Amino acid sequence: MTSVVRAATYRRTFARRTKLASMRRPPVSPRSRLFDVDCRLSYTLTETTDFVFQIHAMQGPDQDVLTESLRITLGATCHTYADPHTGQRFLRVQAVTGPLNLRYRARVKVARPRRKLDAQEVPIAAVPDEVMHNLMPTRYCESDLLSSAALKLFGATRPGCARVIAICDWIHRNVDYRTGSSDTTTTACDVFLSRAGVCRDFAHLGVTFCRALNIPARLAVGYSIFQAPPPDFHAMFEAFVGGRWEVFDPTRMADPSELVRIAVGRDAKDVAFATIFGTAQSRVVAPIVKRVATD
Amino acid sequence: MTSVVRAATYRRTFARRTKLASMRRPPVSPRSRLFDVDCRLSYTLTETTDFVFQIHAMQGPDQDVLTESLRITLGATCHTYADPHTGQRFLRVQAVTGPLNLRYRARVKVARPRRKLDAQEVPIAAVPDEVMHNLMPTRYCESDLLSSAALKLFGATRPGCARVIAICDWIHRNVDYRTGSSDTTTTACDVFLSRAGVCRDFAHLGVTFCRALNIPARLAVGYSIFQAPPPDFHAMFEAFVGGRWEVFDPTRMADPSELVRIAVGRDAKDVAFATIFGTAQSRVVAPIVKRVATD
Amino acid sequence: MTSVVRAATYRRTFARRTKLASMRRPPVSPRSRLFDVDCRLSYTLTETTDFVFQIHAMQGPDQDVLTESLRITLGATCHTYADPHTGQRFLRVQAVTGPLNLRYRARVKVARPRRKLDAQEVPIAAVPDEVMHNLMPTRYCESDLLSSAALKLFGATRPGCARVIAICDWIHRNVDYRTGSSDTTTTACDVFLSRAGVCRDFAHLGVTFCRALNIPARLAVGYSIFQAPPPDFHAMFEAFVGGRWEVFDPTRMADPSELVRIAVGRDAKDVAFATIFGTAQSRVVAPIVKRVATD
Amino acid sequence: MTSVVRAATYRRTFARRTKLASMRRPPVSPRSRLFDVDCRLSYTLTETTDFVFQIHAMQGPDQDVLTESLRITLGATCHTYADPHTGQRFLRVQAVTGPLNLRYRARVKVARPRRKLDAQEVPIAAVPDEVMHNLMPTRYCESDLLSSAALKLFGATRPGCARVIAICDWIHRNVDYRTGSSDTTTTACDVFLSRAGVCRDFAHLGVTFCRALNIPARLAVGYSIFQAPPPDFHAMFEAFVGGRWEVFDPTRMADPSELVRIAVGRDAKDVAFATIFGTAQSRVVAPIVKRVATD
Repeated sequence: MTSVVRAATYRRTFARRTKLASMRRPPVSPRSRLFDVDCRLSYTLTETTDFVFQIHAMQGPDQDVLTESLRITLGATCHTYADPHTGQRFLRVQAVTGPLNLRYRARVKVARPRRKLDAQEVPIAAVPDEVMHNLMPTRYCESDLLSSAALKLFGATRPGCARVIAICDWIHRNVDYRTGSSDTTTTACDVFLSRAGVCRDFAHLGVTFCRALNIPARLAVGYSIFQAPPPDFHAMFEAFVGGRWEVFDPTRMADPSELVRIAVGRDAKDVAFATIFGTAQSRVVAPIVKRVATD
Repeated sequence: MTSVVRAATYRRTFARRTKLASMRRPPVSPRSRLFDVDCRLSYTLTETTDFVFQIHAMQGPDQDVLTESLRITLGATCHTYADPHTGQRFLRVQAVTGPLNLRYRARVKVARPRRKLDAQEVPIAAVPDEVMHNLMPTRYCESDLLSSAALKLFGATRPGCARVIAICDWIHRNVDYRTGSSDTTTTACDVFLSRAGVCRDFAHLGVTFCRALNIPARLAVGYSIFQAPPPDFHAMFEAFVGGRWEVFDPTRMADPSELVRIAVGRDAKDVAFATIFGTAQSRVVAPIVKRVATD
Repeated sequence: MTSVVRAATYRRTFARRTKLASMRRPPVSPRSRLFDVDCRLSYTLTETTDFVFQIHAMQGPDQDVLTESLRITLGATCHTYADPHTGQRFLRVQAVTGPLNLRYRARVKVARPRRKLDAQEVPIAAVPDEVMHNLMPTRYCESDLLSSAALKLFGATRPGCARVIAICDWIHRNVDYRTGSSDTTTTACDVFLSRAGVCRDFAHLGVTFCRALNIPARLAVGYSIFQAPPPDFHAMFEAFVGGRWEVFDPTRMADPSELVRIAVGRDAKDVAFATIFGTAQSRVVAPIVKRVATD
Repeated sequence: MTSVVRAATYRRTFARRTKLASMRRPPVSPRSRLFDVDCRLSYTLTETTDFVFQIHAMQGPDQDVLTESLRITLGATCHTYADPHTGQRFLRVQAVTGPLNLRYRARVKVARPRRKLDAQEVPIAAVPDEVMHNLMPTRYCESDLLSSAALKLFGATRPGCARVIAICDWIHRNVDYRTGSSDTTTTACDVFLSRAGVCRDFAHLGVTFCRALNIPARLAVGYSIFQAPPPDFHAMFEAFVGGRWEVFDPTRMADPSELVRIAVGRDAKDVAFATIFGTAQSRVVAPIVKRVATD
């Protein structure tokens, strides 16, 4: 019923990897942690349907995919595309009427350098060329509309990492985490007005405030360990301070240093775990991640 | 060129006046002030055009129109309608191609009782029936969308007049008065996002926060003395606290006790000084008001 | 457990009734129909809560409430307020923790004059003073934002009743009736974009297009017989053409001549069957209406 | 006063150029046209300000930059960055208080293959990986919100180039070109509602309808010859049909085959001719382009 697309241990070198790595040189040797990912997705299709999945763990300077495998229902056509900029992988699938089951498993070493609390804001002129676009407003992050509000709220805060932390604190205090309070069209402005949302909305608002203050920011999604079930994909955001991307979680539901990152992007539309062209009934979304004990 | 529609000294008794007056019984005898209004409007029309003007001073318990006159270009058809609820007057005009000039003059005594700083909020059950609709969201005052934000900002403030003053202070601190920053479609949510507006936007935001907190509120427009020219109509807002309507000006540009009120309404669309059905080129908008020295 | 507030047979004369009736003089003697309304509402309250209900059938020139009764849970404080303009009734209730049950029953004769298909549009100058406000945009009917679209879609259509019918046809063809596609914040612009909604959204869009074309329009809600259960309140809209208010239903789910009207208003916020100040868990909403056979 | 950064004749080979070129293999040898660009921009700065300019003509398979030069005020720090995907160039400038003048001149050969009117739509599964993101909604192109409307308007039209032409025709008929009707925050939804805009708004709406129908689309800006002055940058859009990017201009103000392309992007924020970080008073925007007579 299911074919096995067992990926070779993931050792592909990205074209831009050297440069990115040097740009993000960690100042202290980070403590590494090991995680096992086991992600199952199931759909029922009533017609031939195209998908783009983003469920592969990212290979990057702060995260190493040691082994991984992907099982997918027999008969589905699929191929994987890796974005040359970020290294994140897109799994494109075309599946026929009937059930579609995916299971992605991976062992991932995450060795994220400790957040530098005194990281400085990067002057515009020093922002790397390929990072510049992370200053622009996007579908869900209308930083142009919230620029005055951001300035009034955080303009007097010390620039740099401290300012991003102040943003996260404000979001945590002023936005209620409420399942069902938002949908796929909800934007940062909506959340700023309604003061309610889920992880993706919290992260969007964080991205938006940062960009409004000329701090490059992007959405980051991945596998996170939550205190409370049910398991789900998690969204955080990254801000470019002190010359590298730091991860922040304004929901405070998970530890940014333990995010097994799948993808980064301008906002949620770039990093959806499943983009579906057609109609598909979702039956199972179970992205499980566990910490592996190391000595 | 202009016909003279000289209104008799305005002494019309409103059907509901007795009730309204008793409802608003002033606790202390207010000091009265005398104002002379001289309002000129000019348009050039390229076709027969209908207008609704709201430029007459309101007759009410806290404001007495002593004398008034209206001049309007000969040939314009017009009649005045007084809203039986509020007493405000609508001047309906149909004018033909060519110039249209209006001049409204009035001497008005304003005797607004001093604001009661300890006025209590009125429990919903005690809000008069005809005031209830002032709790509802309107075109420019989406109090439903801002209810959580209002609660987070002002929920901990002492209820009553003190809370409305806190709302005005917040608006004054957080919204920039900037000519040209808004247009006729700008709503309270827009202003809450953009943090900029003119008097009508400040007042809309005040109305919206009040309604979101279950305080009945409405827009009030009229003639105001500003420190700085040019003269223009002014918008404030009224909140129903302590059993009567109190006037507030979050722009702090004018003294609420000196507003020569023209109209009150759900929001700006109810109280526009000119609503034009057709195309009309505005040439003069000069609503002058002066304090008359009294002994 | 429940007190009985048995209303006397409803024969209250409205202050403005004579005038309204003459304004709307029906040109042909309409065929009358008889309906029995039986409306049950139940809530569970966890705190003292205030309500405004609009469930009473309207008394008006085209609708006669022959008998009616209201039962409400013992202990609830309530009074009824009739709007002097329209005659619609607001039932204000304050209820304590525990269950709140209402049952409203009425026999109503509806004798709505047949729609005049050749009714003309009323020139602005001839629109009655008290109807004028129905030309303005409201919270859910942003006729100012849709004016160009309305003109492009319906500008070439013959003015009058024919144009309103064209509007209804367009809505029926271009908007999908889909339960759950909208919520209490959905506006006419949202529906124009999303092309989906429920009866209230269809009616809002109808109101909005009419106002955008300078045809006074308002929302009308009441009891309607549907082909398919479950029973629910229904929203239609009214347009002021040929000198009177004509009822239209762009959903085509019910017969406008058989609507047992509860209320008319600027938009949904004015005519909600229940406006709740506080938290209340809704348990039963069962507004049943049946045609009574007559000889 | 001005330093001269004379670019060497532009012959840089892009990493991905070979692939792109083969992907877009023109079916017929296009007729080439020669253009001279002379673009002047002037600003007055009151503080040190950062800019990103996009004024360089793109080097690509259908457009060849034969010679070019750039003059910029002495003292401004600047460097050029070429996007490895598209080849478009970003000129990053940091300039001090005082005047900032730029003059970019280029001779460009445009040899765009004739539009294939019978080009087919590309099934999702066949859309190249790096083109996929052009199906997603963006800040100014909310294709998610307009998907039903697009389907209702163009769902019955023959897929492929014909459908994109139908989209352009609809926009041309239903949206008014009106200078000043939109600003930098105006989105495709706004334009769909207001039915007015400028070239960028027309193009955004075209992009949005295409994406809503699963046709990859992007904004394209450049130098265009208009019938009527004054000269300005022009925005068109590109749709991915028949396996290549075709250029469309729903304003019908210029000939798509004669656009000297500067940049392509997800929407206007990606391709602004000037993105300014700080305050700068714009004094001259004069992007002149002229056809060079060839034998």
